[in-house]
Amino acid sequence: MTYCVSMLLDAGMVFLSDSRTNAGVDHINTFRKTSIFQRPGERVLVLMSSGNLAITQQLVSMLREAMAAQDGRENLWSVPNMFEAARHVGEMLREVHRRDAEALKNFGIDFTAALILGGQIGTEQPRLFHIYAAGNFIEATPDTPYFQIGESKYGKPIIDRVVKRYTSLDEAAKLALISMDSTIRSNLSVGVPLDLTILKTNELKIASHISIDAKNEYFAMIRNRWSEALGHAFDELPNPDWLDAGEQL
Amino acid sequence: MTYCVSMLLDAGMVFLSDSRTNAGVDHINTFRKTSIFQRPGERVLVLMSSGNLAITQQLVSMLREAMAAQDGRENLWSVPNMFEAARHVGEMLREVHRRDAEALKNFGIDFTAALILGGQIGTEQPRLFHIYAAGNFIEATPDTPYFQIGESKYGKPIIDRVVKRYTSLDEAAKLALISMDSTIRSNLSVGVPLDLTILKTNELKIASHISIDAKNEYFAMIRNRWSEALGHAFDELPNPDWLDAGEQL
Repeated sequence: MTYCVSMLLDAGMVFLSDSRTNAGVDHINTFRKTSIFQRPGERVLVLMSSGNLAITQQLVSMLREAMAAQDGRENLWSVPNMFEAARHVGEMLREVHRRDAEALKNFGIDFTAALILGGQIGTEQPRLFHIYAAGNFIEATPDTPYFQIGESKYGKPIIDRVVKRYTSLDEAAKLALISMDSTIRSNLSVGVPLDLTILKTNELKIASHISIDAKNEYFAMIRNRWSEALGHAFDELPNPDWLDAGEQL
Repeated sequence: MTYCVSMLLDAGMVFLSDSRTNAGVDHINTFRKTSIFQRPGERVLVLMSSGNLAITQQLVSMLREAMAAQDGRENLWSVPNMFEAARHVGEMLREVHRRDAEALKNFGIDFTAALILGGQIGTEQPRLFHIYAAGNFIEATPDTPYFQIGESKYGKPIIDRVVKRYTSLDEAAKLALISMDSTIRSNLSVGVPLDLTILKTNELKIASHISIDAKNEYFAMIRNRWSEALGHAFDELPNPDWLDAGEQL
């Protein structure tokens, strides 16, 4: 399994991915799920992937091949805006499907892939997309400024309650790490090291790209203190005092 | 969808279920998912169900029929302990499977059912079981003193962080309601009214059985103040101050 989350904020974008892959609980590996494509000052794109690793790795290789080819084919360096970038990634994913889906089906394996693509190209505002296995995609809006892929449910309530478009990048990084912590606690197949990637609006380059492992002091602090803080918040709420008076239905 | 949660504590047991059923988003209804069987002073059992409503309703009808029959057949009044009660419910579920599974399969419908059965019989300690669609079951232990069925992921992290065997019944009711709130916020197919049922150890009867709807003041308070408390807890944790120093990988 995988957990990736990204938020599109006024100040920029935050991307966080875990790195655990598994083919059964006895076959667990570490693979990074974040890919960065940037030409500082001109464009910066971040791609996070979940699903079948053979599919998503092939996709990234094909994207890189097209970027390196210099043969006039469309690629992530040549697309004029983020919408076209999402369309291009979706098309490439369809190409992977054409190549592999039938063979996978013969082995009873579903063609699973989900992608988050965000970034900024030229003078356009930063944009964030969720790309599905079929190559279609949706875009984040002010109402829903974040996307999750993979094991999304454990870490969703806290994001729903906190995130706003005006949330700062520091706060959003904290929020993503808390959301990841809730997920890691509940799903063994999501694990460190984490990739935290931050873009600032109009900088057109990566502001930070940090690998967070089990020894990271800030993440360890989050893990301890968030549990404590939740326990404290829980204690602060009054208990029901009407239980003994409960009517017998 | 459905969300039900139950906790087995030193002080007794707490059961909470929602009441929303849906056959597509345009076909939403309210059905209670908690059934109570009690002979005060002798035995008290609480059954919560999720899955295909036609299956779980049939199961409850068959359990009640057997209890009413007085024909010497095993039933929930006659079983000598909670383990045998869980086995009996599992057997009844297998009988539903024998009757219906093939016909459902012909319509491409899976035989889905998950049950939580808890209670106390005679001098035995209270016990809590999670019964699967195949009629097999597991029992709660001090390490894992709670079970969830249905849409369990959104409301799991807060329970994992808070519940202990020594948690009081009032606190456990509050915890179950907070967990339900997180679930309702994230999944439209889980909704009020809620059934909250409380047993106290060795009372051998229902201590409280309360229906909680959208107008319930305590639940409304939980909904508002828990969001506030989470926001406050979030604000209290320090933001990362190392983002700008992040190495470029």
